[in-house]
Amino acid sequence: MTDNHSAVLLIIGNEILSGRTQDTNTPWIANKLAERGIRLLEVRVVPDIEERIVEALHELRGKAQYVFTTGGIGPTHDDITTQSVAKALNLPIVLDPKAKDVLLEFYGSQDQLTSARLKMAHVPSGAVLVPNPVSGAPGYRIENVFVLAGVPRIMQSMLDHILPELQFGVPILSNTVTCNLMESTIAEKLAKIQDCYDDVEIGSYPHFRSGELGLSVVLRSPENDSLHKATIEVFDLIKSCDGKTHAVSIKSHGEGTF
Amino acid sequence: MTDNHSAVLLIIGNEILSGRTQDTNTPWIANKLAERGIRLLEVRVVPDIEERIVEALHELRGKAQYVFTTGGIGPTHDDITTQSVAKALNLPIVLDPKAKDVLLEFYGSQDQLTSARLKMAHVPSGAVLVPNPVSGAPGYRIENVFVLAGVPRIMQSMLDHILPELQFGVPILSNTVTCNLMESTIAEKLAKIQDCYDDVEIGSYPHFRSGELGLSVVLRSPENDSLHKATIEVFDLIKSCDGKTHAVSIKSHGEGTF
Repeated sequence: MTDNHSAVLLIIGNEILSGRTQDTNTPWIANKLAERGIRLLEVRVVPDIEERIVEALHELRGKAQYVFTTGGIGPTHDDITTQSVAKALNLPIVLDPKAKDVLLEFYGSQDQLTSARLKMAHVPSGAVLVPNPVSGAPGYRIENVFVLAGVPRIMQSMLDHILPELQFGVPILSNTVTCNLMESTIAEKLAKIQDCYDDVEIGSYPHFRSGELGLSVVLRSPENDSLHKATIEVFDLIKSCDGKTHAVSIKSHGEGTF
Repeated sequence: MTDNHSAVLLIIGNEILSGRTQDTNTPWIANKLAERGIRLLEVRVVPDIEERIVEALHELRGKAQYVFTTGGIGPTHDDITTQSVAKALNLPIVLDPKAKDVLLEFYGSQDQLTSARLKMAHVPSGAVLVPNPVSGAPGYRIENVFVLAGVPRIMQSMLDHILPELQFGVPILSNTVTCNLMESTIAEKLAKIQDCYDDVEIGSYPHFRSGELGLSVVLRSPENDSLHKATIEVFDLIKSCDGKTHAVSIKSHGEGTF
């Protein structure tokens, strides 16, 4: 059984694991899903090794309603996502005529459709294409798996295309209260606030900027009323530990009010 | 059986999965490990839920020589890493007297050692502390698991302390060749170069900047000679497809030469 309105993300990329490339797709996807009430339950980064991708897909497919993959759908020898997805789902790989037409248009003529380029028109049998307005070669959906490009600009345009297809949940609203207290100063009382609000998730995130420790308390909930009340309590807690000497700011995301 | 000189990273953090925070610890850790010839095999991001952390630790501990965790070792209710690690390793949690002394010094007096702060002096039995010069509360090593803070500045100082303890492998050298070709233009010939060099891993990474598609070819190897030869072949391949119109640059990391 998987939760409705849930997703996992599988990042296929040696370049992330080697430290060469900073993954920026995770926060982008997480935010877009959260706006639609879809919760990201897990992210995995695995190398460009078929066995590892297949294994991860087997494990992740049962964990959430949707699986997103990024990376590995290009024309080069290290692009092995499609063969891995097909293997994990036990499906043959077929040439998709629509994908071939898209590539023909992008590259301009039949003789430009080299075998490397044609590779990008091959998908697991039954896949539904996801357009790529940037560089032609499409992504696709097969069963509950969405196979997207790794290049952020391309991934983002593919995701925009997909989002309306997804089953919307109740959007998660959030407020952030930032202060310059140490989190240990408010930890016990913050736990008591958390205990009073089952439907609000309160996270405490210290940071270290310009040589100073500070703290963001993030409140997340699908319920605006509870979120509002809990945020006021956090605000009062910080003030009570704080007097006038510390700066307190509240930032609201989504439709949360306070 | 796990590979020597291998590691996995477990990121414990709702703030990453919600999209609020961009994880920057992965590339930092990956690069520091790569310099020492330790390969990062997988990264997982899981929520602040004990069951999910325990499950991930069970799976990851057998996959690599070292497991690093980041996040969840602070004083607040959502900091549940230590209880989860103890559960996964089937160990009791004990008050570490040295950790208590560190906190006593950091907070200044016994009456400042609230139960929330003392929580940070509790570790799985047998843990060896990792100092935290920024905010007192230590990380620790227990068996093959290194439990580190999530705040990047703190995590980095903990990692610096740990690195000399790790078993060094052969450092991976890398060269990057960047050009403004489409990757499909060189895909077939690049695969042939890859076929000639078993000990060089060649990755092809397209990018999209200022409205233009471009490409970085990254070559990685522990063998400087092979890396050198393969890099020259990639350089020549790009030139042969390119004439004089495209910019070609080579960037070298580690000790790779070309």
